[in-house]
Amino acid sequence: MSESPQERVEIARLSTSQADFDRRLADRLAWEGVSDAAVKQRVDEILAEVKVRGDAALVEYSNRFDRLDVTTMAELTLGEQRLREAYEGLPGDQREALSAAAERIRAYHEHQKPTSWQFTEADGTVLGQQVTPLDRAGIYVPGGKAAYPSSVLMNAIPAHVAGVREIVMVVPTPDGVLNELVLAAAYLAGVDYVFTLGGAQAVAALAFGTETVPRVDKVVGPGNIYVATAKRAVFGQVGIDMIAGPSEILVVSDGGTDPDWLAMDLFSQAEHDEDAQAILVSWDEAHLAAVEASIARLLPTLERADIVRESLARRGMLIHCRDRDEAVAMINRIAPEHLELSVANPEGWLPDVRHAGAIFMGRYTAEALGDYCAGPNHVLPTSGTARFSSPLGVYDFQKRSSIIHCSAEGAGELGKIASTLARGESLTAHARSAEYRLTP
Amino acid sequence: MSESPQERVEIARLSTSQADFDRRLADRLAWEGVSDAAVKQRVDEILAEVKVRGDAALVEYSNRFDRLDVTTMAELTLGEQRLREAYEGLPGDQREALSAAAERIRAYHEHQKPTSWQFTEADGTVLGQQVTPLDRAGIYVPGGKAAYPSSVLMNAIPAHVAGVREIVMVVPTPDGVLNELVLAAAYLAGVDYVFTLGGAQAVAALAFGTETVPRVDKVVGPGNIYVATAKRAVFGQVGIDMIAGPSEILVVSDGGTDPDWLAMDLFSQAEHDEDAQAILVSWDEAHLAAVEASIARLLPTLERADIVRESLARRGMLIHCRDRDEAVAMINRIAPEHLELSVANPEGWLPDVRHAGAIFMGRYTAEALGDYCAGPNHVLPTSGTARFSSPLGVYDFQKRSSIIHCSAEGAGELGKIASTLARGESLTAHARSAEYRLTP
Repeated sequence: MSESPQERVEIARLSTSQADFDRRLADRLAWEGVSDAAVKQRVDEILAEVKVRGDAALVEYSNRFDRLDVTTMAELTLGEQRLREAYEGLPGDQREALSAAAERIRAYHEHQKPTSWQFTEADGTVLGQQVTPLDRAGIYVPGGKAAYPSSVLMNAIPAHVAGVREIVMVVPTPDGVLNELVLAAAYLAGVDYVFTLGGAQAVAALAFGTETVPRVDKVVGPGNIYVATAKRAVFGQVGIDMIAGPSEILVVSDGGTDPDWLAMDLFSQAEHDEDAQAILVSWDEAHLAAVEASIARLLPTLERADIVRESLARRGMLIHCRDRDEAVAMINRIAPEHLELSVANPEGWLPDVRHAGAIFMGRYTAEALGDYCAGPNHVLPTSGTARFSSPLGVYDFQKRSSIIHCSAEGAGELGKIASTLARGESLTAHARSAEYRLTP
Repeated sequence: MSESPQERVEIARLSTSQADFDRRLADRLAWEGVSDAAVKQRVDEILAEVKVRGDAALVEYSNRFDRLDVTTMAELTLGEQRLREAYEGLPGDQREALSAAAERIRAYHEHQKPTSWQFTEADGTVLGQQVTPLDRAGIYVPGGKAAYPSSVLMNAIPAHVAGVREIVMVVPTPDGVLNELVLAAAYLAGVDYVFTLGGAQAVAALAFGTETVPRVDKVVGPGNIYVATAKRAVFGQVGIDMIAGPSEILVVSDGGTDPDWLAMDLFSQAEHDEDAQAILVSWDEAHLAAVEASIARLLPTLERADIVRESLARRGMLIHCRDRDEAVAMINRIAPEHLELSVANPEGWLPDVRHAGAIFMGRYTAEALGDYCAGPNHVLPTSGTARFSSPLGVYDFQKRSSIIHCSAEGAGELGKIASTLARGESLTAHARSAEYRLTP
């Protein structure tokens, strides 16, 4: 790790030419969000209590963990009127920006709507797939310092576009503090109910339902280790989205982008929290040095300089690679949540990018635009899970049913095949059920 | 529960007019596939051992749990040549039936392939979504009595259609017994590697990789409680499909289908295992009685009569409802894995079916046809999870990347919105990163 004490910023410099490069890279990428046995047990207890005692348990836990003093669920419930007031009470510029973002997010997600389809075979047999929305979705919104109105839009709008009948939001209010922007976003996004609940108890309420909180079919949204552990525990009884790790960005630069811009892009990732990860890859060594100098110069001017400094020191990397091919290999090795292709002709790179949550193309596409208002979702697979998962989308709030409608003729043909295979598996009732429908 | 000792078959008779109907229904639907603490701990140990010791642990566990006597992974590896021999060694009718089924499954799943898309906004900004396959998929195939070649086709073919580069299959061989049909199916489905591994150790090998077994990006396929517990534990490091409960069918009959056919359809579900669930709903009471009589008469003729009798007694139901509307409500309440609409004009029912894994329409579409060869997948959401999940499909082996390419003009417009919202969230590095790109 290079250190420049006079610059007072520490960020690891790696090169693919180093003999131990793979190990060094792996070490800094490593992340295990494992909840220990004590957390698991505590969460299991909370889930069991809410399942059995419902609202009463929710009131108790909220008083204890969020330092409230309430006696009924009515005090933990916000109606549509309250959400509208929050929206109407915003300063004009914020209200307009939030509305513009919501509109763009909605427009993008409309493109994701899949359609049901059918086709008819020569003998009249019809096969297809019917797409339907979930009845009810639950959205967890963190309270406190990570209360982001943009996250409300990003979680609720795809559900709305999918046609979900009811959207239930939970958000903790530690010490009773409400975030007006969060409530305004809920209003804009078409949330039906808001309960001021948090933690494992909120997940339990959504997964099992209580006297007041309606049971949902899927729980989405980020949260702390208790929330993540509770989501993992209820998975299967309800659907869940991915369990998110810390946020990360991989910027690939060909050397043609202003080093200050790139430094600020890395900062915008690092300012999330101390575990966030910001990585820059380039084959231009002088350019890497220029970005490092920009980092050193600009970092002290940041409002969240302490968080950024810590995040860069813990998990940041400036990686020198040999050429474009090595940069592509790095992308697919890391499978980043955010990939910024700060290069000329980024379209030419797309066919080679196998794994990335979201791809920010060209010098003008700051990742921050995607966080708020470009349109695509900012809930993205972290920690290399882009290898097998996708941005949150309309598809997360829908499911499919297969459709099979055999004609008499089709049932005769298929029945013979099914009968042979069923007998091969010693499932003779299957075989006889098919044989009844053979054309005589 | 009605009992007819002279008929020697027990199956619960329910009616929606009963005062305690909801409770009775809920009791019989209830299923919790919870693994106890001892199983969890054992699985955690196995996962840790395989992670650290790799092949050596796989050899030891296979010797112990499958009663083998091997010393190297080579003895637990089957090459392409061996798979081909299995295929070529099948009796002609089985080979043809398996090939026909594979071809139909492939053709159906081709319809599921999503396409990448992009659109360009007025200011030149491009937004879109790129669809890419997983690099590597792992398929767990149970050994022993539940070794189904049809499951190999249903798991591997969608992966193949999705464009997955490598498909790795694991199948335990207790006492060294190989199932030739399973190997033949692997050959047909384009599986790249087969390892004769099972249990939690096989899941660990797929999730972490070893010296011999390549690490995969997603693990799919059914298994016993150790396999299910291991899948839940590795979820997040790799993708997994749903954790399956016992198989179930809900048959809705308008009274016009031959009672013997319906009895055999219920048997074909019940013969899977003692926890399988077969339910018939009708508003025609005489018809329900006729099906019950068919059940009593035909059950003794079944090869798996003991399993069927036990399954019907434990979890079977004949439900009398008032009318079509109540039947629809029952469908959406149960969200069945398999729904058989044995009615006139089943198309008319489709818009009302909100939750079902697969819908078998009309009197000729026996569920067994879908199990083997109709084309749609037979890996379906069980235990009411059709409320939020889908049949296994091509989409399970692909993922999406969002694409954002802002023009200079677009970055200017979006930058203003992003800046306002970022400052509202106190993320000022985000704001400044966007502001750099504002058009001067």
